[in-house]
Amino acid sequence: MAKLTEIGWEAFSGLALEAKKPYLEREEGDGMPYHTLFAQQFDRALLERLCALANRIRFINKSKEGALYLKNVLAHKRAMLYFSQPSSRTFLSHLAACQILGLTTGSVRDAATSSEFKGESHEDSVRTFSSYFDMIIMRSPEQGLAEKMAWELSNSERPIPILNAGSGKDQHPTQALLDIYTLVRSFETKGGLDGRTVVFCGDLMRGRTVRSLSYLLTNFKGVKQIFVAPQELQVPADVVMVLAKKGVEFEVADDLKSAVKIADAVYMTRIQDEWDESKGASAKIDTSRFKFGAEELALLGKDGIIMHPLPRRDEIATCCDHDPRAMYWRQMRNGMWIRAALIASVFGFEKSIMDCGY
Amino acid sequence: MAKLTEIGWEAFSGLALEAKKPYLEREEGDGMPYHTLFAQQFDRALLERLCALANRIRFINKSKEGALYLKNVLAHKRAMLYFSQPSSRTFLSHLAACQILGLTTGSVRDAATSSEFKGESHEDSVRTFSSYFDMIIMRSPEQGLAEKMAWELSNSERPIPILNAGSGKDQHPTQALLDIYTLVRSFETKGGLDGRTVVFCGDLMRGRTVRSLSYLLTNFKGVKQIFVAPQELQVPADVVMVLAKKGVEFEVADDLKSAVKIADAVYMTRIQDEWDESKGASAKIDTSRFKFGAEELALLGKDGIIMHPLPRRDEIATCCDHDPRAMYWRQMRNGMWIRAALIASVFGFEKSIMDCGY
Amino acid sequence: MAKLTEIGWEAFSGLALEAKKPYLEREEGDGMPYHTLFAQQFDRALLERLCALANRIRFINKSKEGALYLKNVLAHKRAMLYFSQPSSRTFLSHLAACQILGLTTGSVRDAATSSEFKGESHEDSVRTFSSYFDMIIMRSPEQGLAEKMAWELSNSERPIPILNAGSGKDQHPTQALLDIYTLVRSFETKGGLDGRTVVFCGDLMRGRTVRSLSYLLTNFKGVKQIFVAPQELQVPADVVMVLAKKGVEFEVADDLKSAVKIADAVYMTRIQDEWDESKGASAKIDTSRFKFGAEELALLGKDGIIMHPLPRRDEIATCCDHDPRAMYWRQMRNGMWIRAALIASVFGFEKSIMDCGY
Repeated sequence: MAKLTEIGWEAFSGLALEAKKPYLEREEGDGMPYHTLFAQQFDRALLERLCALANRIRFINKSKEGALYLKNVLAHKRAMLYFSQPSSRTFLSHLAACQILGLTTGSVRDAATSSEFKGESHEDSVRTFSSYFDMIIMRSPEQGLAEKMAWELSNSERPIPILNAGSGKDQHPTQALLDIYTLVRSFETKGGLDGRTVVFCGDLMRGRTVRSLSYLLTNFKGVKQIFVAPQELQVPADVVMVLAKKGVEFEVADDLKSAVKIADAVYMTRIQDEWDESKGASAKIDTSRFKFGAEELALLGKDGIIMHPLPRRDEIATCCDHDPRAMYWRQMRNGMWIRAALIASVFGFEKSIMDCGY
Repeated sequence: MAKLTEIGWEAFSGLALEAKKPYLEREEGDGMPYHTLFAQQFDRALLERLCALANRIRFINKSKEGALYLKNVLAHKRAMLYFSQPSSRTFLSHLAACQILGLTTGSVRDAATSSEFKGESHEDSVRTFSSYFDMIIMRSPEQGLAEKMAWELSNSERPIPILNAGSGKDQHPTQALLDIYTLVRSFETKGGLDGRTVVFCGDLMRGRTVRSLSYLLTNFKGVKQIFVAPQELQVPADVVMVLAKKGVEFEVADDLKSAVKIADAVYMTRIQDEWDESKGASAKIDTSRFKFGAEELALLGKDGIIMHPLPRRDEIATCCDHDPRAMYWRQMRNGMWIRAALIASVFGFEKSIMDCGY
Repeated sequence: MAKLTEIGWEAFSGLALEAKKPYLEREEGDGMPYHTLFAQQFDRALLERLCALANRIRFINKSKEGALYLKNVLAHKRAMLYFSQPSSRTFLSHLAACQILGLTTGSVRDAATSSEFKGESHEDSVRTFSSYFDMIIMRSPEQGLAEKMAWELSNSERPIPILNAGSGKDQHPTQALLDIYTLVRSFETKGGLDGRTVVFCGDLMRGRTVRSLSYLLTNFKGVKQIFVAPQELQVPADVVMVLAKKGVEFEVADDLKSAVKIADAVYMTRIQDEWDESKGASAKIDTSRFKFGAEELALLGKDGIIMHPLPRRDEIATCCDHDPRAMYWRQMRNGMWIRAALIASVFGFEKSIMDCGY
């Protein structure tokens, strides 16, 4: 373990992601993150511990007694949800995770309110929040901001943990955690995730979820990745490079049906036209062959699953919604459980929850 | 009892309101609603049970011990307040009802945030909320939406109850409940609501509260209804038809003073000019004779009460505010208690609260 | 003690601040405020009791058991945060104070939502809130509104306390409380606040914090006040008059460095150009000599402290932020503790918290 108080900002920000990891861990040395900034902080052991804890929390929460036990775990803490880039879905998921553990919350979630803080530096705003709260869950359009704030807070007189709920185009670590949790859980009683084939389809160029999940999958043995997308939206070279370097089997393709036939999991994504450089650019791309409907459903194996980070447009036909292999709603709910597991761990309650009598 | 899982949407939505009622009840068979969609779900027996429970909750909440008991009743549940049609008054009332029972809440209550969900179907949005919460309290300008969502949720893998906090022009069932509760409570120790005369005055054409309350009053014996309004804003024909068909005594009038003289309750309403078909249309109507002031107060019997769903403009002069017969502020607070009673019942806690030692 | 129910609004509002004080106290006669409207309600004895209680709450909150004890103190109460003049910083501080004591909260904090209430009178809005909540914490651009509402509520059928979180240009009493608490706490183990020299610097004309703090400091013996500002922004005559009348030593100056040399506390403030009568007027004033940087830091005594109500622009150089004498972040956090102390006292829990076993 290394300490953020023992390294300057310039030096820290210049490190490779893997080298940053030890600086972000809890001082208690249990390997759990203190600040949660990027998917690369999670190795297989950590992922499995978090999945196990999420399962445990989900189970405990089924009974009223269990739910009340959980609501007491962090009832002495308060979290600030600072969403300068609004997203109700992600907001509500984190909120629910906090509520399950009894954390009370404050929030800034609309542009108008958060603009008040524009007169002051980000550093001052975050110091303000740290005056009143015990954790900051933040979402920002500004790449790298969560990382900077984590360093600042750790070097302040009142260090509190940062949980990155999406910053800029690249990092959204808890989305990656919930995707992994969904995969792990889906194959839990069927031999596990090792050796599976995961198909990514849609806008693979701009989806930060694809980028993070692809990386995290390299923690598992023999998981083959197939990227199915229109040429203009294919997975970026740097993602492929990581896979090649790690010796992971992968394929770049453009035929969804063929891929579905051999898929254990199909991860559909939305065209992210909000990132279009010129308005309407995405509309010119023919995406008709990159949708999951009745025909694809018929081709999917009986243990196969369909995932989507949501919201969807028409990438998955609604006729698939009630199929037991449609995992996207449960995937969303999984986000709440894995976030609760993460937050509990950040505050050092992994063990007591795992060992509690419920 | 019937099940929403055993009837298609087309068939269900085509039923008469009375025929829909059994589909909306709790599976446990205690007659309480699971989904709360329209006033017609409540018959006299149910209204009296809810009023009794509201009285009980109000009483228990007086002591700190009682309040803490109540806060534990639903402490293991979370409610989503989804207000795509903003209304702080109704929002706060439902919020307070949740808080009394210990429910934690999430919310979307402004147009800007809720517009995020416009990219996806209503069905997907509501499924999203059902991933994180145990109940959805929704208000929407779209007529029939709450009903559709209730059917969708009951047919999903994660059914949760819907509470309609106002949809479109026609239904706002909990407003009707609080009006009935106020009437029942006001005459509780004075011989009850049967045989009373209720005067409605103001914009009777467009107020959904009048429509619902008029209907619910038919559950009581011999309640006479007098509708006092300018001709252009008189009660719609279909409301009158229901009364005629049920053999309820009613009168359509235009002299408030005469009506007040024989009234047990005067229900004043605001001109709802937000529904004007051409801007300013309401302003051309002479409403000067349909206001309650010092003169009307002098004419009202000593046990008579004055009600208003609020907010008011000038329909009731402020000189009436401190008169013991002015019931409108208490009426608003009654809304909180009856909503708490309803929510507790939806989750099956009617009996345990009625029987608790507080 | 006097009662608001025994004095008319005209008579009450015409009283001098000091004469209003007894009308705002708790009926129980412990001298604590029921309504908190202006800084002049607090004399030295009251300030010291609140500071002691804030210290106690801060200490109790350190352990999980203590924090859970505190969360139970007002768990049976609900507070409404009505911020028609948005301020996330003040909002979050009051929210956190409520949460520490277990109060659940509702809020209106954006202009759009609060505009809904514009159709009705302020009196009706506040009566609405009093229907659902047990306390109103309000911030408003309208001078005197909190006072009017306090009188109205005390004369209603459901009186609940008002806490003024800033109204108009003049009063923001809890800001003054946190400033005093910060001073008291900083000199607690160093001989106390009596006899100290406090330097105010910046925009002394328009800052309501300066006005209130200057007044409260007159409660302490021999505290000298030095006002350092550009001529156009110097402290108003009426503030100086109060000091002169009370025989308090003060100085009006324009050289920050000289003042810092003899200061025990330097209270920096931001240029409040939002109150400029013509746009950009403040920008023409030379404020370069009224900033605290490395040079000033070098001149400050080793026990001296630097304060700022925040947010800052460039009045204090960031190079001062980690100096142990920089008190502004702790000052912000102090706001949370002193507000919790005040709220607990309003509800009569001062003694039970002081005497509890934690």
